[in-house]
Amino acid sequence: MRMQDEKKKEAIFGATVKLVNEVGFASASIAKIAKAANVSPATIYIYYSDKQDLLASTFAVIAEKKVQVSMKGFDESSPIKESLRKVWINSFKFVSKHEDLLQYHEQFLNSPYSDLVDDPQSTNGFQSLRAAIESAAAEQIIKPVGFDLIRAFIFGPLLALAQSKTRDNSRMTRRSIETAFEMTWDAIKRDQD
Amino acid sequence: MRMQDEKKKEAIFGATVKLVNEVGFASASIAKIAKAANVSPATIYIYYSDKQDLLASTFAVIAEKKVQVSMKGFDESSPIKESLRKVWINSFKFVSKHEDLLQYHEQFLNSPYSDLVDDPQSTNGFQSLRAAIESAAAEQIIKPVGFDLIRAFIFGPLLALAQSKTRDNSRMTRRSIETAFEMTWDAIKRDQD
Repeated sequence: MRMQDEKKKEAIFGATVKLVNEVGFASASIAKIAKAANVSPATIYIYYSDKQDLLASTFAVIAEKKVQVSMKGFDESSPIKESLRKVWINSFKFVSKHEDLLQYHEQFLNSPYSDLVDDPQSTNGFQSLRAAIESAAAEQIIKPVGFDLIRAFIFGPLLALAQSKTRDNSRMTRRSIETAFEMTWDAIKRDQD
Repeated sequence: MRMQDEKKKEAIFGATVKLVNEVGFASASIAKIAKAANVSPATIYIYYSDKQDLLASTFAVIAEKKVQVSMKGFDESSPIKESLRKVWINSFKFVSKHEDLLQYHEQFLNSPYSDLVDDPQSTNGFQSLRAAIESAAAEQIIKPVGFDLIRAFIFGPLLALAQSKTRDNSRMTRRSIETAFEMTWDAIKRDQD
Protein backbone atom coordinates (compact mmCIF):
# COMPACT_ATOMS: atom_id res chain seq x y z
CA MET A 1 0.00 0.00 0.00
CA ARG A 2 1.29 3.44 -0.87
CA MET A 3 2.13 5.88 1.87
CA GLN A 4 -0.69 8.16 0.85
CA ASP A 5 -3.19 5.30 1.03
CA GLU A 6 -2.00 4.44 4.55
CA LYS A 7 -2.53 8.03 5.60
CA LYS A 8 -6.02 8.07 4.13
CA LYS A 9 -6.93 4.85 5.91
CA GLU A 10 -5.62 6.27 9.17
CA ALA A 11 -7.64 9.45 8.69
CA ILE A 12 -10.77 7.37 7.99
CA PHE A 13 -10.09 5.25 11.08
CA GLY A 14 -9.64 8.29 13.31
CA ALA A 15 -12.71 10.04 11.92
CA THR A 16 -14.86 6.92 12.37
CA VAL A 17 -13.87 6.54 16.03
CA LYS A 18 -14.32 10.23 16.76
CA LEU A 19 -17.66 10.61 15.01
CA VAL A 20 -19.17 7.39 16.37
CA ASN A 21 -18.13 8.39 19.89
CA GLU A 22 -19.72 11.79 19.42
CA VAL A 23 -22.97 10.97 17.64
CA GLY A 24 -23.39 7.18 17.86
CA PHE A 25 -23.33 4.41 15.28
CA ALA A 26 -26.60 5.24 13.58
CA SER A 27 -25.87 8.90 12.90
CA ALA A 28 -22.28 8.40 11.80
CA SER A 29 -22.90 8.23 8.04
CA ILE A 30 -20.26 7.54 5.41
CA ALA A 31 -20.76 11.11 4.16
CA LYS A 32 -20.08 12.61 7.60
CA ILE A 33 -17.10 10.34 8.23
CA ALA A 34 -15.64 11.22 4.84
CA LYS A 35 -16.02 14.91 5.60
CA ALA A 36 -14.37 14.54 9.01
CA ALA A 37 -11.51 12.52 7.47
CA ASN A 38 -11.11 15.05 4.67
CA VAL A 39 -11.55 12.43 1.94
CA SER A 40 -14.36 11.84 -0.53
CA PRO A 41 -17.03 9.21 0.21
CA ALA A 42 -15.79 7.40 -2.91
CA THR A 43 -12.39 6.99 -1.23
CA ILE A 44 -14.02 5.23 1.70
CA TYR A 45 -15.73 2.83 -0.72
CA ILE A 46 -12.32 1.88 -2.14
CA TYR A 47 -11.43 0.33 1.20
CA TYR A 48 -14.81 -0.67 2.65
CA SER A 49 -17.81 -2.18 0.96
CA ASP A 50 -20.34 -0.32 3.12
CA LYS A 51 -20.91 1.33 6.49
CA GLN A 52 -21.22 -2.00 8.30
CA ASP A 53 -17.89 -3.09 6.86
CA LEU A 54 -16.28 0.21 7.93
CA LEU A 55 -17.67 -0.04 11.48
CA ALA A 56 -16.75 -3.70 11.93
CA SER A 57 -13.28 -3.18 10.41
CA THR A 58 -12.67 -0.23 12.73
CA PHE A 59 -13.63 -2.43 15.67
CA ALA A 60 -11.29 -5.16 14.37
CA VAL A 61 -8.38 -2.70 14.13
CA ILE A 62 -8.96 -1.61 17.74
CA ALA A 63 -9.24 -5.20 18.96
CA GLU A 64 -6.01 -6.02 17.13
CA LYS A 65 -4.16 -3.01 18.61
CA LYS A 66 -5.40 -3.99 22.05
CA VAL A 67 -4.08 -7.52 21.65
CA GLN A 68 -0.75 -6.36 20.25
CA VAL A 69 -0.14 -3.88 23.06
CA SER A 70 -1.41 -6.26 25.77
CA MET A 71 0.66 -9.22 24.62
CA LYS A 72 3.85 -7.23 24.12
CA GLY A 73 6.71 -9.04 25.85
CA PHE A 74 4.48 -11.98 26.78
CA ASP A 75 6.76 -14.89 27.50
CA GLU A 76 5.28 -18.35 27.79
CA SER A 77 8.37 -19.63 29.59
CA SER A 78 7.95 -17.18 32.51
CA PRO A 79 5.90 -18.22 35.55
CA ILE A 80 2.23 -17.62 34.78
CA LYS A 81 1.86 -14.94 37.46
CA GLU A 82 4.67 -12.91 35.92
CA SER A 83 3.47 -13.21 32.34
CA LEU A 84 -0.08 -12.41 33.42
CA ARG A 85 1.08 -9.36 35.37
CA LYS A 86 2.72 -8.09 32.20
CA VAL A 87 -0.44 -8.60 30.13
CA TRP A 88 -2.62 -7.03 32.82
CA ILE A 89 -0.52 -3.91 33.21
CA ASN A 90 -0.09 -3.54 29.43
CA SER A 91 -3.86 -3.81 28.98
CA PHE A 92 -4.56 -1.39 31.78
CA LYS A 93 -2.23 1.18 30.27
CA PHE A 94 -3.79 0.69 26.85
CA VAL A 95 -7.37 1.20 28.00
CA SER A 96 -6.40 4.14 30.20
CA LYS A 97 -4.44 5.84 27.43
CA HIS A 98 -6.85 5.20 24.59
CA GLU A 99 -10.15 6.18 26.14
CA ASP A 100 -11.57 6.95 22.70
CA LEU A 101 -10.71 3.51 21.33
CA LEU A 102 -12.09 1.83 24.45
CA GLN A 103 -15.30 3.83 24.18
CA TYR A 104 -15.77 2.75 20.55
CA HIS A 105 -14.86 -0.85 21.45
CA GLU A 106 -17.35 -1.06 24.32
CA GLN A 107 -20.12 0.74 22.44
CA PHE A 108 -19.62 -1.65 19.52
CA LEU A 109 -19.89 -4.71 21.77
CA ASN A 110 -23.04 -3.26 23.36
CA SER A 111 -24.61 -2.45 19.99
CA PRO A 112 -26.47 -4.59 17.48
CA TYR A 113 -23.32 -4.42 15.32
CA SER A 114 -21.61 -6.88 17.64
CA ASP A 115 -23.45 -9.58 15.67
CA LEU A 116 -21.12 -8.76 12.77
CA VAL A 117 -18.11 -10.21 14.58
CA ASP A 118 -17.91 -13.82 15.65
CA ASP A 119 -16.58 -14.10 19.18
CA PRO A 120 -15.17 -10.63 19.64
CA GLN A 121 -13.44 -11.30 22.96
CA SER A 122 -11.51 -14.40 22.01
CA THR A 123 -9.24 -12.79 19.48
CA ASN A 124 -6.58 -15.04 18.03
CA GLY A 125 -3.81 -12.93 19.53
CA PHE A 126 -4.81 -14.04 23.01
CA GLN A 127 -4.42 -17.73 22.12
CA SER A 128 -1.00 -17.99 23.77
CA LEU A 129 -2.39 -16.38 26.95
CA ARG A 130 -5.28 -18.83 26.88
CA ALA A 131 -2.89 -21.77 26.42
CA ALA A 132 -0.71 -20.54 29.31
CA ILE A 133 -3.76 -20.21 31.56
CA GLU A 134 -5.03 -23.63 30.63
CA SER A 135 -1.72 -25.30 31.37
CA ALA A 136 -1.46 -23.41 34.67
CA ALA A 137 -4.93 -24.74 35.53
CA ALA A 138 -3.76 -28.27 34.67
CA GLU A 139 -0.75 -27.72 36.97
CA GLN A 140 -3.10 -26.61 39.76
CA ILE A 141 -1.65 -23.10 39.92
CA ILE A 142 -4.82 -21.49 38.60
CA LYS A 143 -8.39 -22.49 39.43
CA PRO A 144 -9.77 -25.06 36.99
CA VAL A 145 -12.92 -23.03 36.31
CA GLY A 146 -12.73 -22.58 32.53
CA PHE A 147 -11.30 -19.74 30.48
CA ASP A 148 -14.51 -17.63 30.45
CA LEU A 149 -14.45 -17.13 34.21
CA ILE A 150 -10.71 -16.49 34.34
CA ARG A 151 -11.00 -13.96 31.51
CA ALA A 152 -13.86 -12.16 33.25
CA PHE A 153 -11.69 -11.70 36.36
CA ILE A 154 -8.69 -10.50 34.36
CA PHE A 155 -10.43 -8.00 32.08
CA GLY A 156 -13.66 -7.17 33.94
CA PRO A 157 -12.12 -5.26 36.85
CA LEU A 158 -9.59 -3.68 34.49
CA LEU A 159 -12.33 -2.18 32.32
CA ALA A 160 -14.39 -1.13 35.32
CA LEU A 161 -11.37 0.66 36.81
CA ALA A 162 -10.33 2.32 33.56
CA GLN A 163 -13.87 3.52 32.87
CA SER A 164 -14.57 4.86 36.33
CA LYS A 165 -11.21 6.65 36.37
CA THR A 166 -12.01 8.18 32.99
CA ARG A 167 -15.30 9.45 34.35
CA ASP A 168 -13.68 10.80 37.51
CA ASN A 169 -10.80 12.29 35.52
CA SER A 170 -8.47 10.63 37.99
CA ARG A 171 -5.51 8.33 37.47
CA MET A 172 -4.55 5.09 39.14
CA THR A 173 -1.18 5.26 40.84
CA ARG A 174 1.45 2.68 39.96
CA ARG A 175 0.88 1.20 43.39
CA SER A 176 -2.88 0.84 43.02
CA ILE A 177 -2.36 -0.78 39.60
CA GLU A 178 -0.10 -3.33 41.31
CA THR A 179 -2.67 -3.84 44.07
CA ALA A 180 -5.40 -4.38 41.49
CA PHE A 181 -3.29 -6.98 39.71
CA GLU A 182 -2.67 -8.80 43.00
CA MET A 183 -6.44 -8.88 43.56
CA THR A 184 -6.91 -10.39 40.10
CA TRP A 185 -4.31 -12.97 40.97
CA ASP A 186 -6.03 -13.76 44.28
CA ALA A 187 -9.28 -14.29 42.37
CA ILE A 188 -7.84 -16.79 39.91
CA LYS A 189 -5.06 -18.61 41.78
CA ARG A 190 -5.64 -21.96 43.49
CA ASP A 191 -6.02 -21.51 47.22
CA GLN A 192 -2.97 -23.57 48.16
CA ASP A 193 -0.02 -21.55 46.95
CA MET B 1 -49.96 10.28 39.51
CA ARG B 2 -52.96 8.86 37.71
CA MET B 3 -52.87 5.30 36.46
CA GLN B 4 -52.98 6.45 32.89
CA ASP B 5 -50.00 8.74 33.42
CA GLU B 6 -47.99 5.88 34.91
CA LYS B 7 -48.76 3.76 31.87
CA LYS B 8 -47.70 6.54 29.53
CA LYS B 9 -44.44 7.04 31.42
CA GLU B 10 -43.76 3.32 31.26
CA ALA B 11 -44.45 3.27 27.53
CA ILE B 12 -42.06 6.20 27.04
CA PHE B 13 -39.41 4.47 29.17
CA GLY B 14 -39.72 1.22 27.20
CA ALA B 15 -39.68 2.99 23.84
CA THR B 16 -36.61 5.04 24.81
CA VAL B 17 -34.62 1.97 25.82
CA LYS B 18 -35.69 0.00 22.75
CA LEU B 19 -35.05 2.78 20.24
CA VAL B 20 -31.72 3.87 21.72
CA ASN B 21 -30.52 0.26 21.72
CA GLU B 22 -31.56 -0.09 18.11
CA VAL B 23 -30.42 3.18 16.56
CA GLY B 24 -28.19 4.86 19.16
CA PHE B 25 -28.56 8.00 21.25
CA ALA B 26 -28.14 10.52 18.45
CA SER B 27 -30.78 9.06 16.12
CA ALA B 28 -33.36 8.39 18.82
CA SER B 29 -35.36 11.61 18.46
CA ILE B 30 -38.28 12.64 20.66
CA ALA B 31 -40.54 12.26 17.59
CA LYS B 32 -39.45 8.66 16.98
CA ILE B 33 -39.65 7.76 20.66
CA ALA B 34 -43.15 9.25 20.87
CA LYS B 35 -44.23 7.24 17.85
CA ALA B 36 -42.80 4.01 19.30
CA ALA B 37 -44.48 4.70 22.66
CA ASN B 38 -47.76 5.52 20.95
CA VAL B 39 -48.01 8.95 22.57
CA SER B 40 -47.70 12.44 21.14
CA PRO B 41 -44.37 14.30 21.39
CA ALA B 42 -46.24 16.89 23.50
CA THR B 43 -46.94 14.16 26.06
CA ILE B 44 -43.22 13.47 26.39
CA TYR B 45 -42.62 17.19 27.04
CA ILE B 46 -45.08 17.03 29.96
CA TYR B 47 -42.66 14.77 31.79
CA TYR B 48 -39.27 15.72 30.37
CA SER B 49 -37.87 19.13 29.50
CA ASP B 50 -35.90 17.87 26.49
CA LYS B 51 -34.19 14.87 24.94
CA GLN B 52 -31.21 15.07 27.30
CA ASP B 53 -33.56 15.06 30.28
CA LEU B 54 -35.40 12.03 28.85
CA LEU B 55 -32.16 10.11 28.22
CA ALA B 56 -30.63 10.94 31.59
CA SER B 57 -33.90 10.20 33.43
CA THR B 58 -34.18 6.84 31.65
CA PHE B 59 -30.64 6.04 32.78
CA ALA B 60 -31.53 7.09 36.34
CA VAL B 61 -34.59 4.80 36.35
CA ILE B 62 -32.44 1.85 35.24
CA ALA B 63 -29.74 2.63 37.81
CA GLU B 64 -32.44 2.83 40.49
CA LYS B 65 -34.01 -0.51 39.44
CA LYS B 66 -30.56 -2.10 39.48
CA VAL B 67 -29.89 -0.88 43.00
CA GLN B 68 -33.32 -1.94 44.26
CA VAL B 69 -33.03 -5.46 42.85
CA SER B 70 -29.38 -5.83 43.89
CA MET B 71 -29.91 -4.68 47.46
CA LYS B 72 -33.07 -6.72 48.02
CA GLY B 73 -32.74 -8.62 51.27
CA PHE B 74 -29.40 -6.96 52.09
CA ASP B 75 -28.88 -7.33 55.81
CA GLU B 76 -26.16 -5.31 57.48
CA SER B 77 -26.18 -7.59 60.49
CA SER B 78 -25.19 -10.68 58.43
CA PRO B 79 -21.51 -11.53 57.96
CA ILE B 80 -20.13 -9.43 55.09
CA LYS B 81 -19.46 -12.46 52.88
CA GLU B 82 -23.09 -13.54 53.13
CA SER B 83 -24.57 -10.12 52.49
CA LEU B 84 -22.18 -9.57 49.60
CA ARG B 85 -23.07 -12.95 48.08
CA LYS B 86 -26.70 -11.90 48.10
CA VAL B 87 -25.97 -8.58 46.39
CA TRP B 88 -23.69 -10.25 43.84
CA ILE B 89 -26.18 -12.93 42.86
CA ASN B 90 -29.07 -10.43 42.78
CA SER B 91 -27.03 -8.16 40.50
CA PHE B 92 -25.95 -10.99 38.28
CA LYS B 93 -29.54 -12.10 37.82
CA PHE B 94 -30.63 -8.54 37.09
CA VAL B 95 -28.04 -7.91 34.39
CA SER B 96 -28.59 -11.35 32.85
CA LYS B 97 -32.36 -10.96 32.77
CA HIS B 98 -32.51 -7.35 31.61
CA GLU B 99 -30.03 -7.36 28.74
CA ASP B 100 -31.84 -4.42 27.17
CA LEU B 101 -31.56 -2.27 30.30
CA LEU B 102 -27.90 -3.23 30.74
CA GLN B 103 -27.17 -2.35 27.11
CA TYR B 104 -28.74 1.09 27.55
CA HIS B 105 -26.95 1.56 30.89
CA GLU B 106 -23.52 0.68 29.49
CA GLN B 107 -23.99 2.65 26.28
CA PHE B 108 -25.02 5.64 28.34
CA LEU B 109 -21.92 5.41 30.54
CA ASN B 110 -19.73 5.09 27.41
CA SER B 111 -21.41 8.04 25.72
CA PRO B 112 -20.89 11.79 26.07
CA TYR B 113 -24.24 11.83 27.93
CA SER B 114 -22.53 10.32 30.98
CA ASP B 115 -21.44 13.88 31.79
CA LEU B 116 -25.09 14.60 32.61
CA VAL B 117 -24.98 12.39 35.71
CA ASP B 118 -22.67 13.04 38.62
CA ASP B 119 -21.03 9.85 39.76
CA PRO B 120 -23.23 7.28 38.07
CA GLN B 121 -21.79 4.24 39.81
CA SER B 122 -22.03 5.41 43.38
CA THR B 123 -25.79 5.55 43.61
CA ASN B 124 -27.19 6.34 47.02
CA GLY B 125 -28.84 2.93 47.25
CA PHE B 126 -25.44 1.29 47.52
CA GLN B 127 -24.49 3.40 50.56
CA SER B 128 -25.27 0.61 53.01
CA LEU B 129 -23.16 -1.82 50.95
CA ARG B 130 -20.33 0.70 50.94
CA ALA B 131 -20.62 1.17 54.70
CA ALA B 132 -20.59 -2.59 55.25
CA ILE B 133 -17.50 -2.97 53.06
CA GLU B 134 -15.71 -0.14 54.82
CA SER B 135 -16.36 -1.57 58.25
CA ALA B 136 -15.26 -5.03 57.07
CA ALA B 137 -12.04 -3.42 55.84
CA ALA B 138 -11.58 -1.80 59.25
CA GLU B 139 -12.11 -5.22 60.86
CA GLN B 140 -9.43 -6.68 58.55
CA ILE B 141 -11.87 -9.05 56.85
CA ILE B 142 -11.66 -7.22 53.50
CA LYS B 143 -8.53 -5.68 51.97
CA PRO B 144 -8.08 -2.03 52.97
CA VAL B 145 -7.67 -0.90 49.35
CA GLY B 146 -10.46 1.65 49.05
CA PHE B 147 -13.99 1.28 47.77
CA ASP B 148 -13.17 1.93 44.08
CA LEU B 149 -10.99 -1.17 43.83
CA ILE B 150 -13.41 -3.35 45.80
CA ARG B 151 -16.30 -2.18 43.62
CA ALA B 152 -14.36 -2.91 40.42
CA PHE B 153 -13.82 -6.50 41.57
CA ILE B 154 -17.46 -6.97 42.56
CA PHE B 155 -19.14 -5.50 39.48
CA GLY B 156 -16.44 -5.70 36.78
CA PRO B 157 -16.36 -9.50 36.40
CA LEU B 158 -20.13 -9.62 36.81
CA LEU B 159 -20.69 -7.31 33.83
CA ALA B 160 -18.03 -9.06 31.76
CA LEU B 161 -19.69 -12.43 32.41
CA ALA B 162 -23.22 -11.21 31.78
CA GLN B 163 -22.19 -9.51 28.52
CA SER B 164 -20.18 -12.40 27.13
CA LYS B 165 -22.98 -14.82 28.00
CA THR B 166 -25.47 -12.56 26.24
CA ARG B 167 -23.31 -12.57 23.14
CA ASP B 168 -22.86 -16.35 23.25
CA ASN B 169 -26.56 -16.87 23.97
CA SER B 170 -25.49 -19.13 26.79
CA ARG B 171 -26.43 -19.16 30.45
CA MET B 172 -24.30 -19.45 33.56
CA THR B 173 -25.26 -22.44 35.68
CA ARG B 174 -26.12 -21.89 39.32
CA ARG B 175 -22.82 -23.58 40.15
CA SER B 176 -20.70 -21.31 37.96
CA ILE B 177 -22.45 -18.26 39.44
CA GLU B 178 -21.41 -19.53 42.90
CA THR B 179 -17.87 -20.15 41.66
CA ALA B 180 -17.70 -16.64 40.23
CA PHE B 181 -18.83 -15.17 43.54
CA GLU B 182 -16.18 -17.17 45.40
CA MET B 183 -13.56 -15.74 43.02
CA THR B 184 -14.82 -12.22 43.78
CA TRP B 185 -14.52 -13.01 47.45
CA ASP B 186 -10.96 -14.34 47.01
CA ALA B 187 -10.07 -11.09 45.25
CA ILE B 188 -11.30 -8.83 48.03
CA LYS B 189 -10.82 -10.79 51.26
CA ARG B 190 -7.77 -10.33 53.45
CA ASP B 191 -5.32 -13.19 52.96
CA GLN B 192 -5.49 -14.48 56.50
CA ASP B 193 -8.97 -15.95 56.90
